[in-house]
Amino acid sequence: MRFLLAIGTTETAQIDGLSAAGADPEAMRWTPAADAELLAYGEPVAAPTVPVSPTGCPTPSLVTRAVRDHLGFDLVTLDAGVDATTAAPTVTVGDRPGADIRQPEPVTNAPTIWERAREFGASLPDEHLLIAESIPGGTTTALGVLTALGEDVGVSSSLPDNPIERKRQVVEAGLAVSGLEPGALAGEPIDAVRLLGDPVLGALGGVVGGALRAGRAVTLAGGTQLLAVAALVRHAGIDDPLSIATTSYVGSDDAVDFGAAAERFDLDCTVTDPGFDRADHVAAERFVHGEAKEGVGMGGALALATWRDLDMAAVRSRFLDRYDRLIDREQALAGEP
Amino acid sequence: MRFLLAIGTTETAQIDGLSAAGADPEAMRWTPAADAELLAYGEPVAAPTVPVSPTGCPTPSLVTRAVRDHLGFDLVTLDAGVDATTAAPTVTVGDRPGADIRQPEPVTNAPTIWERAREFGASLPDEHLLIAESIPGGTTTALGVLTALGEDVGVSSSLPDNPIERKRQVVEAGLAVSGLEPGALAGEPIDAVRLLGDPVLGALGGVVGGALRAGRAVTLAGGTQLLAVAALVRHAGIDDPLSIATTSYVGSDDAVDFGAAAERFDLDCTVTDPGFDRADHVAAERFVHGEAKEGVGMGGALALATWRDLDMAAVRSRFLDRYDRLIDREQALAGEP
Repeated sequence: MRFLLAIGTTETAQIDGLSAAGADPEAMRWTPAADAELLAYGEPVAAPTVPVSPTGCPTPSLVTRAVRDHLGFDLVTLDAGVDATTAAPTVTVGDRPGADIRQPEPVTNAPTIWERAREFGASLPDEHLLIAESIPGGTTTALGVLTALGEDVGVSSSLPDNPIERKRQVVEAGLAVSGLEPGALAGEPIDAVRLLGDPVLGALGGVVGGALRAGRAVTLAGGTQLLAVAALVRHAGIDDPLSIATTSYVGSDDAVDFGAAAERFDLDCTVTDPGFDRADHVAAERFVHGEAKEGVGMGGALALATWRDLDMAAVRSRFLDRYDRLIDREQALAGEP
Repeated sequence: MRFLLAIGTTETAQIDGLSAAGADPEAMRWTPAADAELLAYGEPVAAPTVPVSPTGCPTPSLVTRAVRDHLGFDLVTLDAGVDATTAAPTVTVGDRPGADIRQPEPVTNAPTIWERAREFGASLPDEHLLIAESIPGGTTTALGVLTALGEDVGVSSSLPDNPIERKRQVVEAGLAVSGLEPGALAGEPIDAVRLLGDPVLGALGGVVGGALRAGRAVTLAGGTQLLAVAALVRHAGIDDPLSIATTSYVGSDDAVDFGAAAERFDLDCTVTDPGFDRADHVAAERFVHGEAKEGVGMGGALALATWRDLDMAAVRSRFLDRYDRLIDREQALAGEP
């Protein structure tokens, strides 16, 4: 098994009120780089800080890293286009961030990203791949792609109150600037990424398509952004078996009927509860209150823990331990008591 | 523990008769990329073939990978400048291959490579780093750097008959074109890399210096190229404790008094015998006959096996198994019986 994380940034994420993947817009720019470093090294290396939401919810990459601490799985980070440097080792498939989807062509290099990622996915020898993302504002671009493909499945949010109306307005503006109706790009996944998507969706559509065609087992590790990846792959005409594994926070999110969406794209579906309600700790509470919900493969990592008989209490304990150590480290670096 | 492999290529390696790190000059260009892929994935992914010498000796990266199969250690590949694409995840510290050291300035970007690598080495959280290289023609550029620094320790070879006179001629031509006497760059390690070295020596000098200054334990995993790295670090004025771990093939090589050289640079020294004389197999025999000898961290990986009580017979068995499977795969891809 190998875990593939695609990272990217977009100007779409800088639109006010769309994402909680960072304390502020400047910090959000660093979130994917920091997530990749947390998975690779256990702490930020070139990135300045551990990503937290404006209310202090830590990045879900700490949960995925906690599972990796126990199971030691292999990891590859795909750089799809990041507006920051990262010290994580990467395979580069895209060379620039995505623009705002209200621009005419936010991902001009979508065909190149898709093709490079497809070749990479087709060439990997691993029997089973887990596929994850880190890209702020990613549920908005996922909504853009799903809408362009004509798939009405709804999207989740890293915020407890999903700004879904704001996302719809952004997507409508994006469709309008391209002169498109919803569903106009059905069967045209690369164009859907190019006109309404983000670099990470292009990379993951390509890599999953390539891996499936090469006969690999693929588990999409995430929430509605990975549903959009499934939609891209199905609209590319690839009907091989495909699985998705998400968290109970997305599974129970009223904004999206996850089971129905999984059925729509013919996905075998796993939903895993990390049991954070049993942890008396502020970091776990933020998740219980509906923040973050998913990201950086959290749902897939939790499913992997279950498949390999790793006790969820051990995952929670490791997550909280990592969180406390990183907060102590950041306070020490900042000279705070 | 984390294993760091720096990869690079140079035009120096294209000089006739210097290196056995590839079946021919065109194949040699791909060797570092393929070595990184073998360590990361277990087989070549973007690279066309498994690196072998002109007589069929497989790359020592298969030995390092065999140890990794058993121990599962973390790996980062540093791209110091490679004339090929690689599908291995990399941290980029240099953007172009080295030129021929008989040119006036073969590694113009040596200061940038060194500084980026130093920052990276200083930022890693790992307590212990193993440091390895893959760069064809690397013993010639190592001889160049050692000579420029005024260190007369001799160098080994991937060929059974070391073309040491040829290497000396190349280094003398390199010194002459820069108007330098041997020892002229004592205490100037970055200039020694810039004028007589290769991108990998610059990357490893930087990363080791950064890691030592940050208080990490560092083991140089390799032969005379890693002795040159030790020389660079000592000439940078860094006198922290430092170890080197190499194979018995380098340890018993008459071309270099390894023990004396290790003492010269104040290195704690480990020499490990993979016991290939006990394996009745063509791939092991090439090593016993003095080919390859070292590379891609082989000596460090063997030392790690010993430190972790991994039986050397298990390493040999895994190495031969990987070799046979890769040869079968390549014959199948080539349509041979």
